[in-house]
Amino acid sequence: MTAPDPTPHLQLAVCDYPEHVPQDRWSDYARQQKALGLSAVRIAEFAWALMEPEPGRYDWAWLDAAIDAIAAEGLQVVLCTPTATPPAWLIRTHPEILPVDREGRVREFGSRRQYDFASPVYREHSRRITRAMAERYGQHPAVSGWQTDNEFGCHDTARSWGGASAAAFPAWLQARHGTVDALNEAWGNVFWSMTYQSFDQILPPNLTVTELNPSHLLDFYRFASDTVRDFQAEQLAILRELSPGRFVTHNFMIFESGFDHYAVSQGLDFVSWDNYPTGMLEFFSGWGSEDLKTRYARTGHPDYVAFHHDLYRGMLQRPFWVMEQQCGQVNWAPYNPLPAAGAVGLWTAQAWAHGADTVSYFRWRAATMAQEVMHSGLLRHDETPDRGHLEVEALDLTQFPAGEVRARVAVLHDYESLWIYDQQRHAASLSYWAQTVAYYGALRSLGQDVDIVHPDHDLSGYDVIVAPALTLMTPGRAAHLQDAARHARIVFGPRTAYRTPSGRTPEDGQPGVLRDLLGVRLQNFDSLRPGLHVTVTASSEDSSGQPVAAQAHTWTESYRLAGAQATHAYADGPLAGQPAVTRHGNVTVIGAHSEALIRSVLSAELAAAGLPQQDLPEGVRVSRRSGVTLLQNWTDDTVHLAGRTLAPISFTVTHD
Amino acid sequence: MTAPDPTPHLQLAVCDYPEHVPQDRWSDYARQQKALGLSAVRIAEFAWALMEPEPGRYDWAWLDAAIDAIAAEGLQVVLCTPTATPPAWLIRTHPEILPVDREGRVREFGSRRQYDFASPVYREHSRRITRAMAERYGQHPAVSGWQTDNEFGCHDTARSWGGASAAAFPAWLQARHGTVDALNEAWGNVFWSMTYQSFDQILPPNLTVTELNPSHLLDFYRFASDTVRDFQAEQLAILRELSPGRFVTHNFMIFESGFDHYAVSQGLDFVSWDNYPTGMLEFFSGWGSEDLKTRYARTGHPDYVAFHHDLYRGMLQRPFWVMEQQCGQVNWAPYNPLPAAGAVGLWTAQAWAHGADTVSYFRWRAATMAQEVMHSGLLRHDETPDRGHLEVEALDLTQFPAGEVRARVAVLHDYESLWIYDQQRHAASLSYWAQTVAYYGALRSLGQDVDIVHPDHDLSGYDVIVAPALTLMTPGRAAHLQDAARHARIVFGPRTAYRTPSGRTPEDGQPGVLRDLLGVRLQNFDSLRPGLHVTVTASSEDSSGQPVAAQAHTWTESYRLAGAQATHAYADGPLAGQPAVTRHGNVTVIGAHSEALIRSVLSAELAAAGLPQQDLPEGVRVSRRSGVTLLQNWTDDTVHLAGRTLAPISFTVTHD
Amino acid sequence: MTAPDPTPHLQLAVCDYPEHVPQDRWSDYARQQKALGLSAVRIAEFAWALMEPEPGRYDWAWLDAAIDAIAAEGLQVVLCTPTATPPAWLIRTHPEILPVDREGRVREFGSRRQYDFASPVYREHSRRITRAMAERYGQHPAVSGWQTDNEFGCHDTARSWGGASAAAFPAWLQARHGTVDALNEAWGNVFWSMTYQSFDQILPPNLTVTELNPSHLLDFYRFASDTVRDFQAEQLAILRELSPGRFVTHNFMIFESGFDHYAVSQGLDFVSWDNYPTGMLEFFSGWGSEDLKTRYARTGHPDYVAFHHDLYRGMLQRPFWVMEQQCGQVNWAPYNPLPAAGAVGLWTAQAWAHGADTVSYFRWRAATMAQEVMHSGLLRHDETPDRGHLEVEALDLTQFPAGEVRARVAVLHDYESLWIYDQQRHAASLSYWAQTVAYYGALRSLGQDVDIVHPDHDLSGYDVIVAPALTLMTPGRAAHLQDAARHARIVFGPRTAYRTPSGRTPEDGQPGVLRDLLGVRLQNFDSLRPGLHVTVTASSEDSSGQPVAAQAHTWTESYRLAGAQATHAYADGPLAGQPAVTRHGNVTVIGAHSEALIRSVLSAELAAAGLPQQDLPEGVRVSRRSGVTLLQNWTDDTVHLAGRTLAPISFTVTHD
Repeated sequence: MTAPDPTPHLQLAVCDYPEHVPQDRWSDYARQQKALGLSAVRIAEFAWALMEPEPGRYDWAWLDAAIDAIAAEGLQVVLCTPTATPPAWLIRTHPEILPVDREGRVREFGSRRQYDFASPVYREHSRRITRAMAERYGQHPAVSGWQTDNEFGCHDTARSWGGASAAAFPAWLQARHGTVDALNEAWGNVFWSMTYQSFDQILPPNLTVTELNPSHLLDFYRFASDTVRDFQAEQLAILRELSPGRFVTHNFMIFESGFDHYAVSQGLDFVSWDNYPTGMLEFFSGWGSEDLKTRYARTGHPDYVAFHHDLYRGMLQRPFWVMEQQCGQVNWAPYNPLPAAGAVGLWTAQAWAHGADTVSYFRWRAATMAQEVMHSGLLRHDETPDRGHLEVEALDLTQFPAGEVRARVAVLHDYESLWIYDQQRHAASLSYWAQTVAYYGALRSLGQDVDIVHPDHDLSGYDVIVAPALTLMTPGRAAHLQDAARHARIVFGPRTAYRTPSGRTPEDGQPGVLRDLLGVRLQNFDSLRPGLHVTVTASSEDSSGQPVAAQAHTWTESYRLAGAQATHAYADGPLAGQPAVTRHGNVTVIGAHSEALIRSVLSAELAAAGLPQQDLPEGVRVSRRSGVTLLQNWTDDTVHLAGRTLAPISFTVTHD
Repeated sequence: MTAPDPTPHLQLAVCDYPEHVPQDRWSDYARQQKALGLSAVRIAEFAWALMEPEPGRYDWAWLDAAIDAIAAEGLQVVLCTPTATPPAWLIRTHPEILPVDREGRVREFGSRRQYDFASPVYREHSRRITRAMAERYGQHPAVSGWQTDNEFGCHDTARSWGGASAAAFPAWLQARHGTVDALNEAWGNVFWSMTYQSFDQILPPNLTVTELNPSHLLDFYRFASDTVRDFQAEQLAILRELSPGRFVTHNFMIFESGFDHYAVSQGLDFVSWDNYPTGMLEFFSGWGSEDLKTRYARTGHPDYVAFHHDLYRGMLQRPFWVMEQQCGQVNWAPYNPLPAAGAVGLWTAQAWAHGADTVSYFRWRAATMAQEVMHSGLLRHDETPDRGHLEVEALDLTQFPAGEVRARVAVLHDYESLWIYDQQRHAASLSYWAQTVAYYGALRSLGQDVDIVHPDHDLSGYDVIVAPALTLMTPGRAAHLQDAARHARIVFGPRTAYRTPSGRTPEDGQPGVLRDLLGVRLQNFDSLRPGLHVTVTASSEDSSGQPVAAQAHTWTESYRLAGAQATHAYADGPLAGQPAVTRHGNVTVIGAHSEALIRSVLSAELAAAGLPQQDLPEGVRVSRRSGVTLLQNWTDDTVHLAGRTLAPISFTVTHD
Repeated sequence: MTAPDPTPHLQLAVCDYPEHVPQDRWSDYARQQKALGLSAVRIAEFAWALMEPEPGRYDWAWLDAAIDAIAAEGLQVVLCTPTATPPAWLIRTHPEILPVDREGRVREFGSRRQYDFASPVYREHSRRITRAMAERYGQHPAVSGWQTDNEFGCHDTARSWGGASAAAFPAWLQARHGTVDALNEAWGNVFWSMTYQSFDQILPPNLTVTELNPSHLLDFYRFASDTVRDFQAEQLAILRELSPGRFVTHNFMIFESGFDHYAVSQGLDFVSWDNYPTGMLEFFSGWGSEDLKTRYARTGHPDYVAFHHDLYRGMLQRPFWVMEQQCGQVNWAPYNPLPAAGAVGLWTAQAWAHGADTVSYFRWRAATMAQEVMHSGLLRHDETPDRGHLEVEALDLTQFPAGEVRARVAVLHDYESLWIYDQQRHAASLSYWAQTVAYYGALRSLGQDVDIVHPDHDLSGYDVIVAPALTLMTPGRAAHLQDAARHARIVFGPRTAYRTPSGRTPEDGQPGVLRDLLGVRLQNFDSLRPGLHVTVTASSEDSSGQPVAAQAHTWTESYRLAGAQATHAYADGPLAGQPAVTRHGNVTVIGAHSEALIRSVLSAELAAAGLPQQDLPEGVRVSRRSGVTLLQNWTDDTVHLAGRTLAPISFTVTHD
């Protein structure tokens, strides 16, 4: 199965819930959706209790009618397996399906995602309902594709810390390690006498007296990730069998860390994600300053959103869908402001420019019941068009042609590095995502289009490769990067190659197997509390217009040179006089966390690689796709750039 | 049974614990209490273990003697049922009495209120001990009345999230909804597949994976409220039977939201409440700024205290008691400052002016043991008179005549609106209480006496009716308000009529059944994080001396006009150009949260209603009762007002 | 058994983990340790799983070899009983060993300290493994001494709130109180009807509905403390029996409050403690301001560190060991900065000056596995010498002669006062440690050497005795202080003698049995939220160059004079005009919390006692031992003092 046929330009869609309104509204809604220029409607991801009101008795009549109403207007239907919400009768009959939280409490029925991915009972029901739906609708002409489940990992559900997951964990460990001695060695269990005598002694890594073994955690996270992957694979196999010619996708989340998205994406036709820019900033971006959150409260931050587009485009290296696109206020952040006038159009244009083939708004009509009554839709509760509807109406889709996004710059990203980094942050306010986004944002501010790529994937197409936080290193990965350095300039951030695949450190110190490539050995690392800074200055041989000094915060590390030369050094603090940035042939390492320093070094590397760059003001961004350039103004001010004038919260499109 | 016979002026009382001191102190204490001018002593609310040292064996000797000692001085006795503190032998025999917290943990013996109101076992013991006490003392000549239990809901005990309450909840739901299908429809359970097949599948709404269904919560809160009401009703029936001619009251709490106080007040002779102004501000007023809390640290905030007086006077629309009045430092807030010199007198005078017939100080002598050793009393640990004692001595009670408080302004208040509002705040720093108190405080700053009234009660006596946060609307309530608007001006705040009785939203949008009265439809609402503001300006036709512009924060909403006219509009932000305040005949709606705007609009409405008003400085307040005006200065500064000079923290009384 | 033979000067040692590295590194490490000038190596405290890989099967071969490798270089071995980390097989066979946290959750295997001190099963295994080790190594010539277990109480493990401790608590209570009536009286259980009928009704004081009885808590803390003491005593008896001539010590913690260290120290030869200055400030000093934490981020605060040296020297009134001395970054605080250049040397010199005979660095080589991979050692992961190693190399130990620390000033400290103070702080930001350290720091800033002494110990040797927070008072203690006042000046801080041994207050008010000595009665106490201040001014008869006024914060209290005279009074606030500081013969009481006031009063008392003092700038400190004076500069600035110039972060030594 391949991605859907190419269309000449961006398509729009909507998430709708026919089961939430009387049946007599269905045809009207479909007509209005068609009139708005939509091409598809996603339905049914939470409708299990309606499809199967009691064990084994299916009721398809309502869904037949709902699909027919949509199809009658020539709209396509994206159907969802409804496994994000097992019905009450199933949970009350099999409470062992319920997941367990990190505190050891059973997570109860009454909202959604109340299942443990490892539950064999739930697996059986997941396959059964998937098969039943696929048999019924797999070849329905209006059904263009499928979404599996909904938002894996949302509400911290990728992992269950007891119950079925606890029962399944030992066997997974045995499969990975073979013998318990091998596990003890891999985890370093000799430390604190944590040696196990048998696999069945091993529980999930929670409720320990103090900090748990990071290797224990790393393997538990791998186990949980594999379990999510296997859960979806079972649905995927059934959909492939019974729904030929239809796409299958999944809608991923914002800054979700609960599983390896590369692994879970495998087998899908394309990847989707759910884009809520305001909640992304207010709720998911713990590292953002209050000032930043206030400044971008009504649009979200352009780079955080762009990062996700590039992240999910990179999963399968092809265009993607935004399966849920915010079109008004959300309801789940501490504050849920109205988007600025123009924001919905801006978000849609940005999504296209970063590779979205379809943008599907969430949701058609604001819900009049239950958890989401304060969440917006394209229609208000009273069915009048809301602000987002008007912005969608105004869009000219022909200015958003289909095609590829071509980037000469790659940012490397790896979930195992994320897991091990965030388990032991050492400086509380820095995290894998924060560090990665800092590098990504610097590239965006220099006008670069960026691919986000797994470090073990093909890197041959890039001129500049940036690895902001590649903490976990393997010999194979090191060799792969060594290859890449033959044709590309590579920039590494701090904490590179701190850890081995088992979560230990290299016995010969950092950066272990990457030492030859980097030409340095780690000397010391330093964790700076808020208020503590050190100064980094450029070495004399590198002072061609560079900023003379930058203030580093939160994290610094220094190196002994083993082939590399220092381009910047610390001017004060305990590392005074030691290298802060080094260069070894094509390879640069930045040891200090400083937005100004990162931007300066990346700019120099882009220049050295011959890539054109722009000095974009804050909140102004450029993206390119299919020979078209999208210039975006995310600020409240009118901006003049390169002879153009941009109104507040607006975009313009130009052809190369 | 009716309220106690009117006395010519305010009476004073005290809470005392004879069981905490040797019996040889009792007569001395009674003499000193009499000498201080007190008329009653409240005793025995925590003395169950002494009354019934082992199951079924009662020991009344000590209580006989304690009552006699008080009676010997001509003081009245207020007796309490001791059910706030079930004894150890009862809990260890019947641990199923214990309540369960929101996290699913049993709340253990070792402090107080360790019972689940729904426990049939506890109900039986509650009736038994009440009957035993009433048989013994119900007709004792010195016993003037009863307090049921103590501070229902204190320490978040109105609701138990498991155990006996979980067992009783399904039957309550069945009684309310009839069929599970009706419940599913009312709650909107089709959303997220939460449909139930039978009532016995339904648990309390806690420990869910993510946000729970607000309708589920709303019904659980109603169930808990009904359970509190029924618990008290059983005691009340016994007391009526066995203690004729005595009053029965209950001492309610500060900003307590755990049950519908209107329902629980029914059947009482009058209402009491426990007034701790400093702890009220420091502990219970989460929305207060740090600066405000520091400024009023030694007095509490005048409007917060006044609000409670008016709230509890309004329960049964008659004078009330302050059953516990702070007379020195408390011990349960993070900081427990000494009251300012003069504060005890000021609080007492204020209580009288707002309708208190009796003010009862907590407590006679500071406790020398257990949880409250850091709490003050009228006497110190060493039995010397503490600061509060001296202030009470100095009071001239004849300046505080009995009689009615007559208000022309009503503020509407409804616990169901509170519950549904606070469950989905949408803007984290705004709450039902914060919004309500903002409107109430504006009225106080304009010199108004205010009744706080349930929206379904008689509104015929008011010229101006203010509904700050009437979120839950019913057709009957709408009709009632429509009637009221024939004779009174009504001002509604934001979020009016957002929700139906089942917790859903109106299918035709807000304000649903109130649309004709308001003459508007809700256009959009907006949640503003701290730091985000929008400007509201008065429309030209309304600029007669009004402030030209106000800064709104935290919450704004806008309207489409459907009969009303806009008096103010947004000048910037996403709602720029849209109505912020509208008027439709007698009815005004304020959509923006802004203290200045609220005060300005209310002032205009008071003027239009012909009510005299004053422009009072911050911390200076006026209250009236029985033809006497109490002018209060709650600030540290000397204040000059209307030809009078008020010393810091002081009051004066003038006759009309 | 006595302390180890005196050596002419400070000795150095290191904590090492041979089991963490291949055996072929052991001899190399020992050689390098010897070359660095170390004299001892501490090993094996977490190696139970290696010593006894399965129940009853011991493997000593590796440990024999490890000891031999160390001994071969002439280094001494400090062996540890490995009971801080019971192995997996023991826990899985006897899960009842596991402790329970305050929330009622079992604390699981997977880190360390996963045992309940009260578990009879664990006690048996503790004795068994101790005996096995002692039989094997008790008379090994290289083994100079023993450490019991490791860091009692770390991670809040001194107390288990269920399980074995809950089972043992009633019998302890019975032994203490005799009858349940006596317990009820002691605890004041009549309050809130908490009266018990039998000891077996009594649970640990957690999970109560609201604040628990402080007397209940106090006895539970005593029970837990006794249990720690008994646990160690069992090991101690075995070590005495089987390892004659060797010392036994325990390594205590930073600001650890879980048990009475005086009781647990009894029977040891000397006391040790684990000194981590940066983490002490960042993690353990909750009261420190953000500014202070930033200023001293790379050294820790000199007075906090010195306080611990003096505290632990005072336990047995003899020199002590620093068993673990930070020599680079730690890994367990929110931020873990690199120590400043010079800090390791400075810390080592300070430890000596305050009475350390040996300073043992933690750890030899940074761990390459498990929880502590981000923690430093003397060697890096790659076995190169880290910064701390270089500083240790540079030390000239001959400048640090052995001998006594002689102080004329004592600060009184008592764990029961700490427990009862912190349970009811009344002002959230003040605590026993914060108050005590404020007084201690003032003395250090005046150039004083200080002993920290239990209030019931011999006080005859002191000229000035300071009791910052002696909250718990007994008649015997009062008589003891009365005796001391005959020869010494005594200064008491606020909250002195608030409580009796049962946790109640004196029936005749504070300071109860101390009234005659102090010549005052407590009038009122006041808790001031941040932002609230009152002014204290010196009385006219005491204005000889004293600061005229000081601002008090957080806490003030006032007195009625009963023999004493007031030296300072409150100038504003509710206590205006009342005494803030009083003097009665040799005895002064300070009622207000104000750093400036405390320093000023203490300075006057030192002067009156004829003790020389210095006015040291912030961050500059002086300590004396054996006729040598250590002048320390803990700041980043060059300091000029008394004709000497001190570089940033440095020390100098001068001979008297």
